Amino acid sequence: MEKKACLYEGKAKRIYETDKPGVLWVAYKDDATAFNGEKKDVLKGKGRLNNEISSLIFSSLAKKGIKSHFIERLSETEQLIRKVTIIPVEVVVRNVAAGSLVKRLGFQRGQAFDKPIVEFYYKDDELGDPLMNEEHIQALKLASEDEVQSMKEKALAVNEQLIDIFESIDVQLIDFKLEFGRDASGNVLLADEISPDTCRLWDKKTGESFDKDLFRFQQGNLQEGYETIFSRLGGHTQ
Amino acid sequence: MEKKACLYEGKAKRIYETDKPGVLWVAYKDDATAFNGEKKDVLKGKGRLNNEISSLIFSSLAKKGIKSHFIERLSETEQLIRKVTIIPVEVVVRNVAAGSLVKRLGFQRGQAFDKPIVEFYYKDDELGDPLMNEEHIQALKLASEDEVQSMKEKALAVNEQLIDIFESIDVQLIDFKLEFGRDASGNVLLADEISPDTCRLWDKKTGESFDKDLFRFQQGNLQEGYETIFSRLGGHTQ
Repeated sequence: MEKKACLYEGKAKRIYETDKPGVLWVAYKDDATAFNGEKKDVLKGKGRLNNEISSLIFSSLAKKGIKSHFIERLSETEQLIRKVTIIPVEVVVRNVAAGSLVKRLGFQRGQAFDKPIVEFYYKDDELGDPLMNEEHIQALKLASEDEVQSMKEKALAVNEQLIDIFESIDVQLIDFKLEFGRDASGNVLLADEISPDTCRLWDKKTGESFDKDLFRFQQGNLQEGYETIFSRLGGHTQ
Repeated sequence: MEKKACLYEGKAKRIYETDKPGVLWVAYKDDATAFNGEKKDVLKGKGRLNNEISSLIFSSLAKKGIKSHFIERLSETEQLIRKVTIIPVEVVVRNVAAGSLVKRLGFQRGQAFDKPIVEFYYKDDELGDPLMNEEHIQALKLASEDEVQSMKEKALAVNEQLIDIFESIDVQLIDFKLEFGRDASGNVLLADEISPDTCRLWDKKTGESFDKDLFRFQQGNLQEGYETIFSRLGGHTQ
């Protein structure tokens, strides 16, 4: 497989064409951003950890029958993915109250919900990724009613698997963000990444954060937290 | 019927007990507030217009089979209502994009939707009445799943009737806010008021606003706009 022109550079990844149609080459970057790009830094090793963790998780999900755009890990910082057109809707699943939900709706941080809450945010930096409901998504023509239902169902299925994966390494899955894309046939496929950049992960015993909140709120060393997750998942730490 | 102690004073109304159990006495005030109380004024005659218009609309809805807490108009500024416990959820129905939706999600002002959009806001001044979805309502224990569905269905039924009412007086119903309450038996009943304070109403020919945006954005004389609605609805102007 040969890496060709860079198609897109985002906050955390570069995506390249390959010589194979429908297959893209992803290179994870060490850049960290938070609060819609207001807080920025370069954290050496972050790209490696997110690529490694995301590769492990997408592989686990595939074994459980949950397809994603992930094809294979290429190197410490690179992976191959299927080409999809990203639906500009961030799907958030919450098991426990934290982050914006606490501030916006007055939930107690750490409060567990009777059942997971699914939220949709408009992926639009200029608007600041605002919360939307299912009817807004249709009115904005971002996705059809069926696609919204499909994203919601897949997000809940991913949640069940992720809870198990993290439970087995003594980590509580607080919440996470997913993105979906349409493949060439129009099927909705899980995309983007699943990593401590996109999940809130708390140690079951100590409550310690192993996720991007370490960077957002300067709670501690981000790489150490991510390395803990990777190592507990069976990854080979450096 | 005798007016007893004042139970509650809100931004736009005072509510009194009566000598009849389960029946309350509402007196509309001339106070105008906007942007969560940040903008305030006293606009002489506003209380009368909202009471008159709300009485006319609740009466029309009752004739179409849509029950509300409204019992009868008592005077220019007063009405009798059934006692309900207000559910702290504002239900907004939107036919055309305006207001916060334009700013928050980037819709074009004046853009008509293929079907009405129903939104829920948490009625909480301290939090600034944030947007929520149906799952947040349940997690906050504000209303049950059945109650949420009931509010949504009733809101859409009210929308159909209000569109007809305003259409017949050459006014376009852009959006409106409803509140619901539980009666003594736990039934969900339409409550609060339906007036130019709670609806966006545009002249079908000129696009002129006849609603609280006149006050919010200093677009013109609020009382004249409200008087136009009352007079077109067949009310006796002073």
